[in-house]
Amino acid sequence: MIILGIDPGLAIVGYGVINVERGKSTVIDYGVITTPKEDKVPVRLRKIYEGMNALLDKFQPDNIALEELFFNTNTTTGINVAQARGVILLACTQRTNYLYEYTPLQVKQAMTGYGKAEKKQIQYMVTKMLNLSKIPKPDDAADALAIALTHAQAARFGGLFKI
Amino acid sequence: MIILGIDPGLAIVGYGVINVERGKSTVIDYGVITTPKEDKVPVRLRKIYEGMNALLDKFQPDNIALEELFFNTNTTTGINVAQARGVILLACTQRTNYLYEYTPLQVKQAMTGYGKAEKKQIQYMVTKMLNLSKIPKPDDAADALAIALTHAQAARFGGLFKI
Repeated sequence: MIILGIDPGLAIVGYGVINVERGKSTVIDYGVITTPKEDKVPVRLRKIYEGMNALLDKFQPDNIALEELFFNTNTTTGINVAQARGVILLACTQRTNYLYEYTPLQVKQAMTGYGKAEKKQIQYMVTKMLNLSKIPKPDDAADALAIALTHAQAARFGGLFKI
Repeated sequence: MIILGIDPGLAIVGYGVINVERGKSTVIDYGVITTPKEDKVPVRLRKIYEGMNALLDKFQPDNIALEELFFNTNTTTGINVAQARGVILLACTQRTNYLYEYTPLQVKQAMTGYGKAEKKQIQYMVTKMLNLSKIPKPDDAADALAIALTHAQAARFGGLFKI
């Protein structure tokens, strides 16, 4: 089963693609879709949509997992991330109904067994679980791999959070 | 010039289409795209995208005006409205770069000359300016017409707020 993990954003969308066979996860690819700050928001959204479609064409994921969105104080950034996430969800749902979302807490617990784990601990576990030689960069790509791995684990134990 | 005004939302997207010739605005159509609460968010986003594309096909607007988004306390609703707005912006920007946004304050001022105008006053002005026999329903459609009329006025006076 090929799982695409997505860490949504307007400036940077992280993605991580893994293959899961008999409970063992291996990495296929990871990286980011970036949009330039100079572009206006609608143009950036269009670029994210095109980038997402390119990913979906290339990797044909069976399941897609996204991080659930929470807002803190910076609502302007929050609105833009949510607008980007809407476009990402659209691109995904035009291909598959197998969309899942996980909270940051669920990702931390799945990856480390500890809900207050720090980013570095999660990145260490991503690196270890996928048998990588170094920590995936940038952080957004590592986060996306963590989301994909969380889904691999949730799917294995039957605890799915389909959107 | 045909202007499409949009009042974004996840459950209800209001739209209003007007024609502006020599400073005079006439109504072409107005209404709402609705999505059922029973559907999951990605499916609702897909329905909004399809609904927007149907509107754009039908009315071929020269300019599109949207209300700028602000968040209050209900962030879950806010996230969903922003996700829907992202999809709406995507559909629009795939057709035209003539996208404009206005704050609620700008709409109130353009429609009534008064930044604290109430909804009923704005609806009264929409009805009067478009020479309608009754107030457009539902409210979301009336709001969308107000946004379209605000853009008609801003375009006339050269004060545009292109996204």
